Amino acid sequence: MITKQAIVDRLLNGRGAAGGETGEAFAPANIALCKYWGKRDETLNLPVTSSLSLSLGTLGSHCHLRRCDGPDRILLNDEPLPPAHPFVVRASAFLDLFRDPSGAGYAVAATNTIPTAAGFASSASGFASLVLALDQLHGWALTRREASILARLGSGSACRSLWQGLVEWHAGSAPDGMDSYAEPIASDWEALRIGLLVLEGGPKPISSRVAMRRTVATSSTYATWPATVAADMTTCKAAIAAKDFDRLGQAAESNALAMHATMMTAQPPVLYWKPASVAAMHQVWQARHEGIPLYFTMDAGPNLKLIFLASDEKAVCIHFPSLHVCIPHPA
Amino acid sequence: MITKQAIVDRLLNGRGAAGGETGEAFAPANIALCKYWGKRDETLNLPVTSSLSLSLGTLGSHCHLRRCDGPDRILLNDEPLPPAHPFVVRASAFLDLFRDPSGAGYAVAATNTIPTAAGFASSASGFASLVLALDQLHGWALTRREASILARLGSGSACRSLWQGLVEWHAGSAPDGMDSYAEPIASDWEALRIGLLVLEGGPKPISSRVAMRRTVATSSTYATWPATVAADMTTCKAAIAAKDFDRLGQAAESNALAMHATMMTAQPPVLYWKPASVAAMHQVWQARHEGIPLYFTMDAGPNLKLIFLASDEKAVCIHFPSLHVCIPHPA
Repeated sequence: MITKQAIVDRLLNGRGAAGGETGEAFAPANIALCKYWGKRDETLNLPVTSSLSLSLGTLGSHCHLRRCDGPDRILLNDEPLPPAHPFVVRASAFLDLFRDPSGAGYAVAATNTIPTAAGFASSASGFASLVLALDQLHGWALTRREASILARLGSGSACRSLWQGLVEWHAGSAPDGMDSYAEPIASDWEALRIGLLVLEGGPKPISSRVAMRRTVATSSTYATWPATVAADMTTCKAAIAAKDFDRLGQAAESNALAMHATMMTAQPPVLYWKPASVAAMHQVWQARHEGIPLYFTMDAGPNLKLIFLASDEKAVCIHFPSLHVCIPHPA
Repeated sequence: MITKQAIVDRLLNGRGAAGGETGEAFAPANIALCKYWGKRDETLNLPVTSSLSLSLGTLGSHCHLRRCDGPDRILLNDEPLPPAHPFVVRASAFLDLFRDPSGAGYAVAATNTIPTAAGFASSASGFASLVLALDQLHGWALTRREASILARLGSGSACRSLWQGLVEWHAGSAPDGMDSYAEPIASDWEALRIGLLVLEGGPKPISSRVAMRRTVATSSTYATWPATVAADMTTCKAAIAAKDFDRLGQAAESNALAMHATMMTAQPPVLYWKPASVAAMHQVWQARHEGIPLYFTMDAGPNLKLIFLASDEKAVCIHFPSLHVCIPHPA
């Protein structure tokens, strides 16, 4: 079994002469249009399939980093977290991979501009911003591809949070995961919009990590998932190249439903949907029936993310007044 | 292609000397614990998989039948239906298979004791009671197996509505469907209960016939369905033999979710669930979490059917005060 430490040591070997006192970075959250659901390697967060995402512009995570004496000190949204907090345990285990020989701690100030742990992928932007801040602090001068690989070791989908706009995560096939990284999809499709519809906040009843594992291990429909994603990836990339919005939206919505179908056929079933989720799904279909090109996607939580074009924003917001609209390609 | 008429002519050849003036029969509705979802022959209603159901006792359809001059006259719940009504069109097309050479009509008075067309399978009990009433009117002296085959020609799941209690529909493999009929599962499990939770009435947005066809033709997960049903059938039959309620309930609930998963991965997706459906699902899981052995199943509609044991009826009805409880094995 290849460990995370082995990957980190190989990537960072001989680097880090030009570090500084602090590191600071922002990374956007991202929402997958073709989902990452299932790992082929649990240690290195290597996925079963490729995936494709849209970044959320100014919504994401800021990370400020410096060295400190003693154990890690972690502030989340200006609140100091106790050492036993799951977020601290996870972040410290990740930071262990990069510590100086002295073993000194890191003082991390993480600020999320997106609700934490409600299926809005704050762990993706969190680990991506942390890797970028570590790079600055240690002076590794990582390429974006290397940063993507390191971010993946923290949280799979974090590897997609290093760019704005449309991003593809290549599943790769190498056992060490060196070919499993994200990169931006060249596109000047500036009219794309994604809106967050917050229906219920708060933490998830079951983490996506656990739900994903259970789905792969027990779902009666998971066998169809890899081929579904492969087909949806092809469709989405062709739709992006042609700026064919309906084709993109339809493939994204269909991919999300297929992911949730694999969850509800797990044993025991996983259903992140709440009554309000289903109400919003029907409302999206109703809006589409009325002629608005509007599609949804959903992740491991009850909330919907709506996909539409800038020209339809006004019409969409009449249907969904509380929508938080993001520009995935900020100027 | 084998026609319905060919099957009817073969079955009824030389029969019918001892008919009467009227025919009258009752057939119970039935709810599948392992679902029928997908046809291998659209004309003869031959299913892709076997299925297993629980009948609803006194909930079902009464049919009173006599010959009349001119076109068919159909009363549904004491209301005369116009000749263009979809129900009349469908019933008359079925009656065409059995008409006397004179071509005279039938006067049919159908009474449903169960809400029509809200996913409560009134077409199953309707066609089963119609076949039994036709048998009496024409004096064919059908065996139950023959009646099951004829009822299937009207509506697939009608072949299961000729018995109370637990019923298995054998998928069969013959092109003429003569091995595709239902029969009761021998069981003295009198404590089984099924409750109807009516969340929304009214007709379905899409008929199960159309939804089934779309699923088979386009669903990305349908390929897994036959093996899922086969496994669930084996589990259910073993659970029935052992009177292992949790095993039966878990397999039934899982089978229903798998069926709905195949629908939501159709193109375009089919989602019969409403907000209240999902609220009720979570409520069932909550009740189970509290220790009540309670499971649900769902068909092509927004309503839930709850499965439990007589000893838990009181506890179940505290959670679901509006539940209509049926005894599948009436004394």
